Amino acid sequence: MRRFADLSPSPRTILTPGPVEVDPRVLRAMSHSILGQFDPEFTSLMNETMQMLRETFVTANVWAYPVDGTSRSGIEAVLVSLISPGDRVLVPIYGRFGHLLHEIADRCGAEVATIEKEWGYVFDPEEVIAAIDDFRPAFVVMVHGETSTGRAQPLADIGRACRERGVLLIVDAVATIGGVPVETDGWMLDAVVGGTQKCLSIPAGMAPITYNAAAERKALARKRIEKGLLGAAAEPGDVLRPIRSNYLDLSQLQDYWSPLRLNHHTEMTSMLYALREGLRLVLEEGLEARFVRHRLHERALMAGLEAMGMRLYGDPSCKLTVVTCVLIPDGVDGESVRSMLLEAFGIEIASSFGPLRGRIWRIGTMGYSCNRKNVLHLLGAFEATLVRHGVTLPAGEAVQAALTVYESGEQP
Amino acid sequence: MRRFADLSPSPRTILTPGPVEVDPRVLRAMSHSILGQFDPEFTSLMNETMQMLRETFVTANVWAYPVDGTSRSGIEAVLVSLISPGDRVLVPIYGRFGHLLHEIADRCGAEVATIEKEWGYVFDPEEVIAAIDDFRPAFVVMVHGETSTGRAQPLADIGRACRERGVLLIVDAVATIGGVPVETDGWMLDAVVGGTQKCLSIPAGMAPITYNAAAERKALARKRIEKGLLGAAAEPGDVLRPIRSNYLDLSQLQDYWSPLRLNHHTEMTSMLYALREGLRLVLEEGLEARFVRHRLHERALMAGLEAMGMRLYGDPSCKLTVVTCVLIPDGVDGESVRSMLLEAFGIEIASSFGPLRGRIWRIGTMGYSCNRKNVLHLLGAFEATLVRHGVTLPAGEAVQAALTVYESGEQP
Repeated sequence: MRRFADLSPSPRTILTPGPVEVDPRVLRAMSHSILGQFDPEFTSLMNETMQMLRETFVTANVWAYPVDGTSRSGIEAVLVSLISPGDRVLVPIYGRFGHLLHEIADRCGAEVATIEKEWGYVFDPEEVIAAIDDFRPAFVVMVHGETSTGRAQPLADIGRACRERGVLLIVDAVATIGGVPVETDGWMLDAVVGGTQKCLSIPAGMAPITYNAAAERKALARKRIEKGLLGAAAEPGDVLRPIRSNYLDLSQLQDYWSPLRLNHHTEMTSMLYALREGLRLVLEEGLEARFVRHRLHERALMAGLEAMGMRLYGDPSCKLTVVTCVLIPDGVDGESVRSMLLEAFGIEIASSFGPLRGRIWRIGTMGYSCNRKNVLHLLGAFEATLVRHGVTLPAGEAVQAALTVYESGEQP
Repeated sequence: MRRFADLSPSPRTILTPGPVEVDPRVLRAMSHSILGQFDPEFTSLMNETMQMLRETFVTANVWAYPVDGTSRSGIEAVLVSLISPGDRVLVPIYGRFGHLLHEIADRCGAEVATIEKEWGYVFDPEEVIAAIDDFRPAFVVMVHGETSTGRAQPLADIGRACRERGVLLIVDAVATIGGVPVETDGWMLDAVVGGTQKCLSIPAGMAPITYNAAAERKALARKRIEKGLLGAAAEPGDVLRPIRSNYLDLSQLQDYWSPLRLNHHTEMTSMLYALREGLRLVLEEGLEARFVRHRLHERALMAGLEAMGMRLYGDPSCKLTVVTCVLIPDGVDGESVRSMLLEAFGIEIASSFGPLRGRIWRIGTMGYSCNRKNVLHLLGAFEATLVRHGVTLPAGEAVQAALTVYESGEQP
C-alpha cells in the first residue's frame, strides 16, 4: 500500500503574475539524465546559458549567469555582495517589492533612505534624481515592473543620472525580463536581476543576474578566499568588510562560472537544463516579437474586462504590460471568485498584498501562459463566475471584444 | 538555423560523491505541468513532503522542509538564522567541509573556535567534549560525513554531551542522509541539514533541513516581519540582533511552510516534485534496506579495488560507507586517469581538494548510482585504464572479487 500517491497534478490555466505555465519543451528538458557539474559537456551548457542570458539582458557584460535559488536569492546576492555595511542606499518604493528591496538592503547593514509613491503610480524620474542629489547614495536600488500594483517604472533617465553621478543602479527586473524591454546597457543599469517563473516561463528555482565591471569591482574589493579551498598553508585574505554571505557571494559565484570553475555549490543540473531551454525558446521567438505578443494579449484582455464593465486599477500611463489589476466590485468576495475560477474552471488568478488586499485581483499574461486560448477562456469563465456572485453585466460582450482585438492584430 | 543545439546529454555512469545519477521516476516527476504555489493541490504536496522528510530524518520535529537552494544554502540558512553576531561557536574540523562550516559561521559574525583533526581521521567524541568544556560555546557545528576524506564522525556521544550542557548541535548531513543512518532525535541533534544530489539521488537544487523547538526559539527571538507584507500602518518589529538574511531566514521560511502560508519566495515547483518523488522512493525501499544496499556495494567495490592492488586512503575504522578514497599510485597522473574513464567509458569519478589534491581519487556509491552494474563497470574500466597508464596489476581479479562479494550477499 502506498501512503503517498503518484504525482498527478491537475491541468491548470495559470494567469497569475507568476509562477506561470511552462512550455512542454522546458518540462521535457528537465527529464534528461544528469551530467556531473565539472563534466565538459555540462560546463559547455553553462557557457551557452551565459551567452543566451547576455542576449536576453541586452548586454555586453562578461557576467550573466543564474544564482541558484528563487528570484529573491538573486536580489539578495547582488545586494549583499555589492553593498557594504554603512553604505548609503536609496530605495524608491512604489509597491510591495520596493519594500522588499528596502528590507534586504537594511539586512545588509546599509544606511537606507526611501522615497515612496502612492501605490498605483510610478516616479517621475526627476523625483528620483532629486532624491539622489539630496541623499547622495552609493547605490540606487529599485523595481522595474511592480507585480503588486501592475506598474512599470521608466529607467533610462534614472540610469543616465546615476552614471553621471557615479552612483550604481541595481534593478529588480524579475517580472519584466523576457516580457517587456529591459535594456541593461542602453539604460545604463549596473546590475539587473531577472526571474525565471514569470515572463521566461521556466519553473521557479533560478535567478538570472547580470552586472558590469563597476559592480564587479565592488564585490571583488570584499572578496575572501574560502577556508579549506586552498592548501593547508594558505590563509584566507583579510578584507575590511568581507561579504557576509557565502552562498550568495558573487565574487565566489563568478569564479565558479569562469574558466577557473572554482568549486562552490553544486550547480542545479536539471534547473540549468530548464533555463537553457527556456532561453532558447525566448531567442527563437525573438525578443521584439515576444514583446509584441505580450502587448497583443494585454490589449485583448483589457478590452474584454472593460466590455464586461470591470474597472482597472492604477495609472494607465505606466501600466505594466504583463500584469492587469482589476478592482473587485463592491459587495463581491474576491477570494470566493478566485476559488470558483480555480475549482470550476481550472484557472488561477492572484489576490494582492498589503493595502490592496481584498481590493483588486491581479491577472498575469506572462510567457507561455500569455496566449489567445488562455485569455478567451479566462474572460468567459470570469464573466460566468461574476454572474454567479450576483454581478450584473452585459452577457457575452467580453469574449466578443477580445476577439475583435485579435482580428485587428497587433498595431505596429 | 539554430545557434544552440537541442539538449542531448550523453549517458554517464556517475560515481562521484555527488551529484549522482537520478532515478527515472524522479526525472519524470519534473516533467509534470506546474501548479501555482498557493494552489491547494500544491500546498498538499508540500505537506506530504514535510512528512516524508520527518521520516527520513527520523525525527518528531515539527519543522522539516527544504530550503530552496543547493546544500550549502541549507547550511547557511540554519547558521545565519540561529547564530547571532558575537555568539560563541565551536567547529571541529576533519576535512574540507568542516572548513566551510567555519567559513559560514565566521561570515555570520560568530566568535568561532576550531579544533582540527588530521585529514583521514575523525574525532574521539571525548576530544570534542573537552573542547566544549574549555570554550563553552552556544553552538557546536560539525560534519557527519566528510566527502573530502571519506570519513564519518560518530555523533551520539557528542549529541548527549551538548544536550546536557545546553549547547545546540548543528550537523551537516548533506552526504549521509538517505545512505547511512542519521538519527536526528536519537542522537539529540538540534538542527540537521541534508543534501539532495547525493544519497537521495535527486538533482541538486534543494537543501532539506530539520530543527527542533530549541533551535526554533533561537530564530524566533530574532524574527522581524518583512517590510511591505503588513498593512501600511504596521511597523516591522525591532529586535536586537535581527537575522541578516531575508532569503535564508528560517523564521520567515517556516511561516511559508506553515498553515499561515505567509508569502516569501515562490516555491520551486519542479524541484519540489522531484524531492517528493525521491523521498517516496527512499521510503518505499525502506531506510534500513537502503543502508544495507549501500554497505553491500561498498564491500564489493573495496574488495575489487584491493584485489587490483590499490591502496585505500584514511582510517578504516571511521570510513564513510558511501565514499571510497583511493591513493593514486606513484607516477600516475590522476587527472589523466579520470579523463580516460570519462571519455572512453562514460564513467565519472572525483578528484580531491586542498592537501589531497593529486593524491587520491574519490569514488561515490550513492543512491541510484549505488548498484551492481555500476560497481562492476567501474572496476573493469578502472583496471583497463590503469593498465593504459603503465600500472602493473593482476588482470581480471577486481571484477572476480566483487562478484564473490555479491554472491555471498550482505551480512546481517
